[in-house]
Amino acid sequence: MNRSDLFNLIKKKKSFLCVGLDSDLNKIPKHLLNSDDPVFDFNKQIIDATLQYAVAYKPNLAFYESRGIKGMISLEKTMNYLENFKDEVFTIADAKRGDIGNTSTQYAISVFDKQASGFSFDAITVAPYMGADSVQPFLAFPGKWAIVLALTSNKGSDDFQLFTDANETSLFERVLERTSKWGTADNMMYVVGATKAEMLEGIRSIVPDHFLLVPGVGAQGGDLKTVAKYGLNNHCGLLVNASRSILFASAGTDFAEKAALEAKSMQKEMAEILLTNHLL
Amino acid sequence: MNRSDLFNLIKKKKSFLCVGLDSDLNKIPKHLLNSDDPVFDFNKQIIDATLQYAVAYKPNLAFYESRGIKGMISLEKTMNYLENFKDEVFTIADAKRGDIGNTSTQYAISVFDKQASGFSFDAITVAPYMGADSVQPFLAFPGKWAIVLALTSNKGSDDFQLFTDANETSLFERVLERTSKWGTADNMMYVVGATKAEMLEGIRSIVPDHFLLVPGVGAQGGDLKTVAKYGLNNHCGLLVNASRSILFASAGTDFAEKAALEAKSMQKEMAEILLTNHLL
Repeated sequence: MNRSDLFNLIKKKKSFLCVGLDSDLNKIPKHLLNSDDPVFDFNKQIIDATLQYAVAYKPNLAFYESRGIKGMISLEKTMNYLENFKDEVFTIADAKRGDIGNTSTQYAISVFDKQASGFSFDAITVAPYMGADSVQPFLAFPGKWAIVLALTSNKGSDDFQLFTDANETSLFERVLERTSKWGTADNMMYVVGATKAEMLEGIRSIVPDHFLLVPGVGAQGGDLKTVAKYGLNNHCGLLVNASRSILFASAGTDFAEKAALEAKSMQKEMAEILLTNHLL
Repeated sequence: MNRSDLFNLIKKKKSFLCVGLDSDLNKIPKHLLNSDDPVFDFNKQIIDATLQYAVAYKPNLAFYESRGIKGMISLEKTMNYLENFKDEVFTIADAKRGDIGNTSTQYAISVFDKQASGFSFDAITVAPYMGADSVQPFLAFPGKWAIVLALTSNKGSDDFQLFTDANETSLFERVLERTSKWGTADNMMYVVGATKAEMLEGIRSIVPDHFLLVPGVGAQGGDLKTVAKYGLNNHCGLLVNASRSILFASAGTDFAEKAALEAKSMQKEMAEILLTNHLL
């Protein structure tokens, strides 16, 4: 899916919502636990309930890997199910990978090359610490995307991302400046936390055209209107992720219904934002 | 395995060699490809051939994940096989993980908690970009280790790791200074590339007591004597990794024999270094 396809999808669904599938076996409704694959059953119902409101799904690989091979089977089934809707959803492997070149190539294969690994995500999140040859292998797959960590939503983001040189350039700004030269706005995005929304204006001055994947709205406390105010561009340029606030909106048998309501509420706010900003 | 155990193992085997299991299905000897699980068979023979010369094994998870669930089965079998030798090898999941706190906890479970994930590595490599709450969850598992990326061996390490503040502190030095306060020399190590051996002296002034995991000797061109000169401490303090130079020493049916010779040659050089430095 290229950038125009994604923007068209956003216009069609009047939404730039990404649903994060952080599907923790210990948090999903108890009534699912007797099935053969509770996490897949949970994901399937969440997808069915939110599909009309969301343009992207982002499985958080940690929550699958923590269950070992069983977890990877749940993930594979989830991604195969999402393939039924491949023209109407963008899929992101939230994996924060990055290593020396030949290893990053293997990580890219693990999420992009279905024949080799069983997985064919549209995008993967990438950690930039190891530099150019750790990021570029993800950009070598036509039609696939690398979503590079820039300024994250967690408290610890201050430790290194705000480390600043003599010209008052922060590390995350350096990351934006350098990495944006390695790809284009058609195969790279950036992770920018909603809890740092006030810094979006500066970020947009460095990467005006790129999509930003914005976690931290909802459970982590970020605010959608502020994110939109500083983050929107002429292709929308935002994918706003919500995970726990949707997935665990209810712990009961009505979890999918409550997830749909939460997703619908966010979609409605997003539709207003898109309309106000003449993007619909 | 704690730091004293590791040092005792080093003294017993007169070696600080780590064998990196970057077991690429496309590079292993062709005669293995007809077996049920060529990668496991390859790893088992490599382990048997090098066990007396190596104190640690480091599967590179990318090479398993790139084969999807099949690859994870090869990895699980490899780790179960290594468990037969658990008092005489230290095991490292080379995974470069790191995410917000609750996600890093899931990654820690994926490599440390055998009951949940099937895996019980001694250590995992961790990318520090997201800061304290992304690293600390790995330190919450008693007896387990986080090996944090500091200064890596690849060309791209210059892009961000050498980014420097107004006081001429580089990002990698900041990483050493900050992260070393989050744990101890008994549950943290650092990745420092052998190709940057001349910078080890400065690194040792920041983290005199920590073990350093040093890739880049062999195929990547680093030099063992220089690494030892600047990197050794009174607990040895070094694990030097070799992957391709051992694994792919021969592409024929004699691959294990040639791997043993290569490992033995490195072990012999290491024994001399340990002896010269009064560590035996």
